[in-house]
Amino acid sequence: RYFHFCKLPGRVMGIRLLRFTSVVIIVLLLVAGALTALLPNIKDDKMPNLRREPKTQSQSALDSFTLIMQTYNRTDLLLKLLNHYQAIPHLHKVIVVWNNIGEKIPEEMWNSLGPHPIPVVFKVQTVNRMRNRLQNFPELETKAVLMMDDDTLVSAHDLAFAFSVWQQFPEHIVGFVPRKHISTPSGVYSYGSFELQNPGFGNGDQYSMVLIGAAFFHSGYLEDFQRQPEAVYALIDETQNCDDIAMNFLVAKHTGKPSGVFVKPVDIRNLEKDTNSGYSGMWHRAEHLLQRSYCVNKLVNIYDGMPLKYSNIMISQFGFPNYANHKNKM
Amino acid sequence: RYFHFCKLPGRVMGIRLLRFTSVVIIVLLLVAGALTALLPNIKDDKMPNLRREPKTQSQSALDSFTLIMQTYNRTDLLLKLLNHYQAIPHLHKVIVVWNNIGEKIPEEMWNSLGPHPIPVVFKVQTVNRMRNRLQNFPELETKAVLMMDDDTLVSAHDLAFAFSVWQQFPEHIVGFVPRKHISTPSGVYSYGSFELQNPGFGNGDQYSMVLIGAAFFHSGYLEDFQRQPEAVYALIDETQNCDDIAMNFLVAKHTGKPSGVFVKPVDIRNLEKDTNSGYSGMWHRAEHLLQRSYCVNKLVNIYDGMPLKYSNIMISQFGFPNYANHKNKM
Repeated sequence: RYFHFCKLPGRVMGIRLLRFTSVVIIVLLLVAGALTALLPNIKDDKMPNLRREPKTQSQSALDSFTLIMQTYNRTDLLLKLLNHYQAIPHLHKVIVVWNNIGEKIPEEMWNSLGPHPIPVVFKVQTVNRMRNRLQNFPELETKAVLMMDDDTLVSAHDLAFAFSVWQQFPEHIVGFVPRKHISTPSGVYSYGSFELQNPGFGNGDQYSMVLIGAAFFHSGYLEDFQRQPEAVYALIDETQNCDDIAMNFLVAKHTGKPSGVFVKPVDIRNLEKDTNSGYSGMWHRAEHLLQRSYCVNKLVNIYDGMPLKYSNIMISQFGFPNYANHKNKM
Repeated sequence: RYFHFCKLPGRVMGIRLLRFTSVVIIVLLLVAGALTALLPNIKDDKMPNLRREPKTQSQSALDSFTLIMQTYNRTDLLLKLLNHYQAIPHLHKVIVVWNNIGEKIPEEMWNSLGPHPIPVVFKVQTVNRMRNRLQNFPELETKAVLMMDDDTLVSAHDLAFAFSVWQQFPEHIVGFVPRKHISTPSGVYSYGSFELQNPGFGNGDQYSMVLIGAAFFHSGYLEDFQRQPEAVYALIDETQNCDDIAMNFLVAKHTGKPSGVFVKPVDIRNLEKDTNSGYSGMWHRAEHLLQRSYCVNKLVNIYDGMPLKYSNIMISQFGFPNYANHKNKM
C-alpha cells in the first residue's frame, strides 16, 4: 500500500512518505555501517612521514639494553657508529657521554636527520674524564648496559648473541676483548694479552679481565662504582686510563668468580684509522700498557689483595655463521 | 796419654781401652747417623714391581670423576680405550658395565698387565640392556660421572677441559655431541642433528640435548633415574635405544634449563672400524634415527609436556690448541 502513494490523500501521504523515507534512511545507515566495519584497516606504511607510536617503551627492561658510548674528538666516528648501533635488536636507548668540553652536541643535526629508531641522549660533561662513562645515569632504565668505545664496530649478530649470553651470566662482564694479569716471583703483577706467558694452569691460555669498551654488564655495577674508594677515582684520573681494569676488580670482588665471560667476536673492527679528526685513541700513548700494569698493582694495594680470577672459557655461537661450525670428524 | 797404652799397667789399660773403643764406637755411630740423614731418598721408580701406595683415595670426590663405560661385543676396543682413559687426569675409578652376557670378564688379563693407575671394576650384567649403564653403582664415589661409549676416543686435553667446564655447570650434561629436536606444525616432534632446520630462533643453529655417550654429568642424576616412571624403562628396553634422550628429559625437567652444555671437541674419534669383532654399533641399524624421533614423542607423552630447551652456547678452550685462537683482526 505504501508504494501507491499517488492515490492517497495529501496529509496521509505526507505521513507515509515521512515514514518511508525514515525507513530508507535507517536501512541505508545500517548498510553503510556494516560496510565500514567490513572494510580493511588503512595501512600506515604508505605514509612514511607519519610518526609511529614509539615501541621502545613496551620493551621490558629485562629484554633490552642501553648503549653507553663515551666520545672525545671523533664525532665523525660517533655519528657513523650511531647509525649502525641505533638499529641493533633489543636496544632501548643510547647515552652518548660527550667529553668534548665546550663543544656543542650535534643534537640539531641528529634531530634533523630523524626519525630514529630509539632515543639518543647526549650527556654534556664539564671535565674530560675517562671515568665519565661510569656514572649512574638517571636516563638508564634497563638492567643491561652495552658499553662501546667510540671507535669500535661490532656486528649486530655478535651483539645479539652476546646479549643473550649476558642474560645467562648477568653478574659477569660479557664481552669481546679478553686480557690477563700475571703474577711474577717478585709479587709484582704485570698486565697483558696473549703474548704474555699463560699463568701456568695447564694447557692453553687464561684471561682474567674482559674490557668494558666492548661488553655487556649489569647496570647495578654502575651504582656500585659510585661507592668505590677515592683512591680508585684518583688512579683513573691520574692515568686517564684503567677504568676498565677497575671495573673488573669491582666485579671480581663482588662475585668471587672470574669477572668476565669472553664471547669470541665474528666481526669486530677498529675504525680509528677512518677518522678525519686525526685523533688516535689513548692506547697509542707510549706509556699505555705500562700504565695498565701500574694500575693493576695500585688496585691490588687499594683492594688489599688480588680479586681477579682466571677463566679459559671461550664462547661462540652454535651453527653461526657457519651452520656446521660444531661438526667434528667422528 | 791414651795413645801410649803399651806403657800402661794391664788392668788400667783394659779400662782405658774400653773407654776408648766406646768413644770411638759412639763417634762412628753419630757420624753414620748424620750421613744417613743427609742421604737422598731412594727413588722407587727403579723398582717397577714395587706396588706404590695408591694415591686415588686422596683425590677428593669433588676434584675427580668416575668413568662409566658400557661394553658389548667389542672387548678389543674396550681394552684399547682402557689403556687410554686409565691415565686421564682427575680420573678416580673406571666402572665397566659388562653386557657380554655369559662371557668371562677379562679381569685376569687386566690384573696380569698391572699395575694400573686407577682401579677398574667390571660389573657383570645378567641381561644385555642399554640402560644397564644408568644404574646407581655402589662403587661410584665421585660427584662427577664421565660416560663414554665403548668405541669413542676423546683426547685427554678435551676431557680435562670439559671436566673443568662441568665443575662450573654441575647441574648440566657437559659433553661433546649435541643434538636437537624440532617441533612441526602437526605437533609431532622430530629428532636430529644440524641437518634439520634450526628451530627458528634467529641466526645459527640450536641444540636441545647433549648425548651421554661422551659427556660429564652429576652422579645424582643416576639416583634420579632410578625413580623414573616404568614407561621410560619400557621404552628404552623396547628400542634398546634412547637412554640418552631419556636422561636429557630428566635433566631438563629437573633444572628448567637446557639440559646440556656443548664443549666443542678438538680430538674425538670413533674407533668402530678398528674392531676385530665385526660388530657395528646400534646406530647403524636402519631404524635408529626414526626410533629416536619415536622416543622423543613417547617421552613427551610420559612427561606430559616437552621439557627440553634450546641453547646455542658453544664452549671452546681459550688459547688451546692454538694459543692465539681467540685473536681477532682488530
